[in-house]
Amino acid sequence: MTARNPQPPAGLVEAFRAFEQAQAAGDSSAVAALFAPGSTTLRGDANGLSVGYEAIARDTGAGAQRRLVQTHVQTIDEDHALVVAVTELAAGGRGQQTQLWARLDEGWRITAAHVSAPSPPLDGSIWRIVGDPLVPCTDPDGTLAGETVAVKDVFAVAGQRIGAGHPEWLQHAPVETQHAAVVRLLLDAGAEIRGIARTVELAYGLGGANPHHGTPPNPRAPHRLPGGSTSGPASAVSLGHASIGLGTDTAGSIRVPAAYQGLYGIRTTHGVVPTDGLLPLAPAYDAVGWLARSAFLLRAVGDVLLPDQASGAHETLVVVPALLDLATPDVAAAIRAWLPRLTREEHWPLDALDEWVTAFRTHQGAQAWETHGEWLAPRLDTLGAEVRGRFEEASRIGSDQAAEAARTAAAAGRSVRELVGDRILVLPSASSVAPPAGADPADLEAARQATLRITCLASLGGLPAVSIPLRTAEGLPTGVCLVAAQGRDRDLLDLATRLA
Amino acid sequence: MTARNPQPPAGLVEAFRAFEQAQAAGDSSAVAALFAPGSTTLRGDANGLSVGYEAIARDTGAGAQRRLVQTHVQTIDEDHALVVAVTELAAGGRGQQTQLWARLDEGWRITAAHVSAPSPPLDGSIWRIVGDPLVPCTDPDGTLAGETVAVKDVFAVAGQRIGAGHPEWLQHAPVETQHAAVVRLLLDAGAEIRGIARTVELAYGLGGANPHHGTPPNPRAPHRLPGGSTSGPASAVSLGHASIGLGTDTAGSIRVPAAYQGLYGIRTTHGVVPTDGLLPLAPAYDAVGWLARSAFLLRAVGDVLLPDQASGAHETLVVVPALLDLATPDVAAAIRAWLPRLTREEHWPLDALDEWVTAFRTHQGAQAWETHGEWLAPRLDTLGAEVRGRFEEASRIGSDQAAEAARTAAAAGRSVRELVGDRILVLPSASSVAPPAGADPADLEAARQATLRITCLASLGGLPAVSIPLRTAEGLPTGVCLVAAQGRDRDLLDLATRLA
Repeated sequence: MTARNPQPPAGLVEAFRAFEQAQAAGDSSAVAALFAPGSTTLRGDANGLSVGYEAIARDTGAGAQRRLVQTHVQTIDEDHALVVAVTELAAGGRGQQTQLWARLDEGWRITAAHVSAPSPPLDGSIWRIVGDPLVPCTDPDGTLAGETVAVKDVFAVAGQRIGAGHPEWLQHAPVETQHAAVVRLLLDAGAEIRGIARTVELAYGLGGANPHHGTPPNPRAPHRLPGGSTSGPASAVSLGHASIGLGTDTAGSIRVPAAYQGLYGIRTTHGVVPTDGLLPLAPAYDAVGWLARSAFLLRAVGDVLLPDQASGAHETLVVVPALLDLATPDVAAAIRAWLPRLTREEHWPLDALDEWVTAFRTHQGAQAWETHGEWLAPRLDTLGAEVRGRFEEASRIGSDQAAEAARTAAAAGRSVRELVGDRILVLPSASSVAPPAGADPADLEAARQATLRITCLASLGGLPAVSIPLRTAEGLPTGVCLVAAQGRDRDLLDLATRLA
Repeated sequence: MTARNPQPPAGLVEAFRAFEQAQAAGDSSAVAALFAPGSTTLRGDANGLSVGYEAIARDTGAGAQRRLVQTHVQTIDEDHALVVAVTELAAGGRGQQTQLWARLDEGWRITAAHVSAPSPPLDGSIWRIVGDPLVPCTDPDGTLAGETVAVKDVFAVAGQRIGAGHPEWLQHAPVETQHAAVVRLLLDAGAEIRGIARTVELAYGLGGANPHHGTPPNPRAPHRLPGGSTSGPASAVSLGHASIGLGTDTAGSIRVPAAYQGLYGIRTTHGVVPTDGLLPLAPAYDAVGWLARSAFLLRAVGDVLLPDQASGAHETLVVVPALLDLATPDVAAAIRAWLPRLTREEHWPLDALDEWVTAFRTHQGAQAWETHGEWLAPRLDTLGAEVRGRFEEASRIGSDQAAEAARTAAAAGRSVRELVGDRILVLPSASSVAPPAGADPADLEAARQATLRITCLASLGGLPAVSIPLRTAEGLPTGVCLVAAQGRDRDLLDLATRLA
């Protein structure tokens, strides 16, 4: 050890060695025990900063196997010293740890630690394949020149397979010979494809976790879910890995990650953006969508992917308190605080909402099983518990029940379109902020059900919806969703730029 | 700010703000001025730990644009405090900085800083495209199952272009429809392709820098060159991004990065490993090679890529002091310290060495120009200065001069093969440790010339060469190279595992 003051304080070296031994043994509770108790102790790594002993003990796993290459001590006084160590990881590369140690009544403890490890080749929870670029643009002078696209792994990219968030699917998938229509349009507009980003298994989920590839990070709400199923593209956009996240939204798969991560997102009018080369989930509801960190880029992508649309002049915003209150109070409050002054408050007859959401879920499930059931039936055990349960439920929907649900859903769609009319409906983009990544599955399912009650409205109506990022009073990302009549996608994108 | 002790010491907050302002202004000298003078001041980031004020001032650039999300102060006493800040980068994602501040005579200064930024989508200095995997193996039960390959960007990977370390080349390259022969062999043996890794422009260089994509890092010798031209695969293997680095060695392009980064590497006997799907540089000397972090894996790859070869029984090691002394004293000393006990010392007639290396460089240059000259001639200005100079020089080699060089080189090759005979020649893998990444171009060219005097021997003879990692007394990576008769690749790999 080299020391700023020649002599490290008594007992420090032994405490540091004990820490390294606990690390080497993979003994995470022994590691945690060397942190100082109390609410001000800090430990930061690539997953974010944990504040307070309890958070540290919860968030800190056993570290990677490594050896010390350099150790430096800066002795402050006989009770305080900083230790900076460079480590060489058994897996390759070098890391660094900086620790402030203090001698407490119980002995030497770490009051603050900062750990960094070498970057992985790619974050496999976000990306399946990533390049610099993966596919170059075809027109470097296009309007999207310089932009980079994270493509959800349900769109065809020539030369690659579609993976659909499921290793078994990927393994059986053919190499695509042509780009999906929207991929081609983006390339022709000057954007380059950064890579193919992860999704929830077969895009059937809203939380964003994937049992095979891990849960993509939520950089603006560390240790919380990223939102899905366009989870990889959303995290890629949040991190600046790509500027555009290309995805799909069947039941909220753009709107929910936009809200959870504080991004702009659009679900387009059902059917207006071509879906050639897109792996379907439930074709009656599947819509192309995208995410960006600015409303301006969100609109610029719309200029490329959307057909010409006549502007509907009406920009009356309508809020329905009963729908706002389907969200948790923090989210509803953030939206109320945001509402533009002339927003009209209306009270809609929503007695049928339970029936609508049930019909939506049933019809979506029946369609998903129709799409994937034959292939999945002998392979259900290759899915994680969450999506497996969803498909198993879908497999039990009888044809009469499916037909009945389709009729109810169609009627509900008509009702929603009538209620929205030529106004713009203000909704929560998701029912809550992003749940903690380690939340109980039952709590996550409850959050999904609560979100579906809100997001199903645009899905049933086939309506475009733009999510605008907000923050709760606590500082967590959330989103407000603007829903308009079919074909008013460009109006919503314009409005979002003005409200941004 | 939240504080461990309620009150940050007087003046600290102002000093921290000054630091943030200097950062925001991109004023790297104002940033450096807030570090404490002296040799024990520390600053670590993803590029490694800089020790001492001078190194910090040299290595620290202007930071990324960012805003503070959280700031925590742990006050130690009125002259010392730790500041931990979470930042949100303008480009996306969150970073952390930990700073130990001390009040010195000149004011508050940082005695230690640790900065981490979000991981990029991929390190574009190492990779052009990377996947999880990029190409799956074709036999998951093969002997290389679980291994991952970084493919130097001169081999064909189906569905991708060959980029050759040069954007202009990449742009004009066709999409490959078949894998290069060695890529196919590795996939069939159970390895998966992790990605396509960077190289020196057209593989014509030994330092490893690339003016278009940056210089890949050298994790075991931070701030030093990675070695090339198989630079990306070497850094990928060092970092654990891939376990196998597939490359080529014309004049040392495997041996040099192996030495600079402390890896095992083999240049195979010229012509024994198929080169279908390989972009040539100088076909008379181009040989397939690979890198790994263990001698055992290096050999396992040989079992897949090499033909059956009868073992030459002789394992007499021969060292020629005059050849060892072509390396810098630290490298020569490391090799002398390593030499097995029964190594025979011989004194070879090396009067012609200057003539040999000149003939080698001339013939290599003539071949390189024959290979690429027609395409490059109107595009020389798209190359960086270093490789451009090399090709310009090559373009001026007349056909008589080239023929003369080829004759001399062939005769030299015969001499080398005779001198090596059935023994194993011990050489430095490179003439020095890795030069600093920012070294003067003239110094880098001198290092290259010195290395060529050593590496040209195996290249001229078409001989296999295995580099084994060593360390200098100073702790820097270097390599010892074992050269044997043509076709003794497997013997060398066996020997390396026994010496490892």
